[in-house]
Amino acid sequence: MTTLSEVARHAGVTPATVSNVLRNRGRVGASTRQRVLDAVDALGYRPHLAARALAEGRAPTLALMVSSIANPFYPEFALAVEHAARKSGHFVIICNTNEDPLTGRAYLDQIAGTLSEGVLVTNANLDFADLHTTESRGTPVVLCMWERPNEPPGLPCVAVDFRLAGELAATHLLTLGHRRVGAIVGSKASGIHAARYEGFVDALHAAGAPKGRVKHAPDTIQGGYAAARALLEADPKLTAIFATNDLPALGAMHAAADLGLNVPGDLSVIGITDIQLARESRPALTTIAVPTVEVADLAVSLLRELIESSYGQAGRQPAASVPMRISSAPKLVVRASTGVPRPR
Amino acid sequence: MTTLSEVARHAGVTPATVSNVLRNRGRVGASTRQRVLDAVDALGYRPHLAARALAEGRAPTLALMVSSIANPFYPEFALAVEHAARKSGHFVIICNTNEDPLTGRAYLDQIAGTLSEGVLVTNANLDFADLHTTESRGTPVVLCMWERPNEPPGLPCVAVDFRLAGELAATHLLTLGHRRVGAIVGSKASGIHAARYEGFVDALHAAGAPKGRVKHAPDTIQGGYAAARALLEADPKLTAIFATNDLPALGAMHAAADLGLNVPGDLSVIGITDIQLARESRPALTTIAVPTVEVADLAVSLLRELIESSYGQAGRQPAASVPMRISSAPKLVVRASTGVPRPR
Repeated sequence: MTTLSEVARHAGVTPATVSNVLRNRGRVGASTRQRVLDAVDALGYRPHLAARALAEGRAPTLALMVSSIANPFYPEFALAVEHAARKSGHFVIICNTNEDPLTGRAYLDQIAGTLSEGVLVTNANLDFADLHTTESRGTPVVLCMWERPNEPPGLPCVAVDFRLAGELAATHLLTLGHRRVGAIVGSKASGIHAARYEGFVDALHAAGAPKGRVKHAPDTIQGGYAAARALLEADPKLTAIFATNDLPALGAMHAAADLGLNVPGDLSVIGITDIQLARESRPALTTIAVPTVEVADLAVSLLRELIESSYGQAGRQPAASVPMRISSAPKLVVRASTGVPRPR
Repeated sequence: MTTLSEVARHAGVTPATVSNVLRNRGRVGASTRQRVLDAVDALGYRPHLAARALAEGRAPTLALMVSSIANPFYPEFALAVEHAARKSGHFVIICNTNEDPLTGRAYLDQIAGTLSEGVLVTNANLDFADLHTTESRGTPVVLCMWERPNEPPGLPCVAVDFRLAGELAATHLLTLGHRRVGAIVGSKASGIHAARYEGFVDALHAAGAPKGRVKHAPDTIQGGYAAARALLEADPKLTAIFATNDLPALGAMHAAADLGLNVPGDLSVIGITDIQLARESRPALTTIAVPTVEVADLAVSLLRELIESSYGQAGRQPAASVPMRISSAPKLVVRASTGVPRPR
């Protein structure tokens, strides 16, 4: 493989000049610049990213930790992250933890600071101690989609006001006239969807509506399906179901179909996130949209700032100096799955 | 960061011995081995993957080129590739080309042979000349999901008999009694789904059934939706629709719903691939399942063989020596979207 020195010799300049031309920095005259580019062409030189990164004490990729790329939210988010990362010349390595903290730790141990100079973490069930260790070794970590903007996690993050998302969902159903609403929470009671459910319950409470039944379920179509059937069995007079995520909301629509219930005639269904499937389901799903692309952009740019500033290398930061970016607010997207209640 | 030499000094052995212990090769006595592992623990040593790979003239990742990770097939395939790659200690970089050959070339130029020691290519609309160039630079390339086992592409590949998949779909519809079948082809007439459609047409022909109408459409739910509406408008008496992929088949089911047609009562729908959504749609989609996990396993193991053997570095191979692995045959999976025709 052609080296930088060979290009320099061919162009009659120093290796530093070749490097300056390729990286578009330093002062190089137009004719010298052209000579270098011609030599690059003639010799088929390609900069060796890994070598360059090592020489500079850097790693050329960003790692994106996800619980499973097969969950349809993550590919959409990964694509947005990749677009943002490519702008700064970074490639993205996607690491699937399968919600296993040990797999997550193995990835962090093996790639953080060597292959990857920064780590983006989505809901991958990682151990915070492992993330702090990664940070203290000089590889910044950014949590994407932190659920509680007013309870900072002690790690740099991009927060989304998911409490508000739950509130907006409840307000939409209340405005349509629903008073008998079931809830499907796609995590354990104390899990990552708790804030969404709190917002939902608070809005019901503020309107004087009863809290209604709740089921905790896996954050999947199947999980939502089973939970919706259980809710409708326990209370056949429910007129609406709120799910803390789009996948269980889609499952609730399947359950309604299997029970012979028309959506939204007999049962309104609303989710949170606005994944592509929400737009493509029949009926299309009313949901509270989260600004996925904006979160990806904020997360990548925050991570780049931290990389440039050698954040975290001096050990754990005082809480007040741990940066948090907050995304714009979630928004109601009304589609065909919600309507005025028709008592059964 | 702790170096290998520091570990060696701490354990009182040579760096080569440390390396042998960590890589589980060479002969090292049990007590020496333990001393090395203790030193690794005590000093918190982590092997520097990128440095090790460079020292060995290797790159530590595999690149997976996909047209868009947001298309639900690719995450499922990427997950299977990642599982297979992790077995050999490789990480996977996912590169989205957005079906743009120039983006694909930029990825290949920047990462092949430096960050990645091998490249897996799915339907990413890459230029074959670029792939040959990558190969001749010493970075093996494997095409995954090659559609025509008896027309080798001149590059190492894993082939799936997609012609047979089309044939099986037609045979299933014929067996149910359908004679008036429309087809949605998710690519251009000469595009990558052509083999599937040929198999379909041949089976109809062999059974003496008419060829039926065909629409070429984008390989998406929306593409299938529009194509199905056009087919049903042109011939309201169609009793079945075959789509060359699951996404357009799902779109055809949406179109049927919007036209007030019951699936499968009024219209049977069948696809190819068996993505997760096929199982989760209502009604669940009958489809011809492709062995995705097996293809991923075959592709990763073929790529590893080629990496070990320095395949392709001596220039383009004679056709006969270009390896091809063929997956097990696609299989009919009968679900709820197909049934006996009921004339309208």
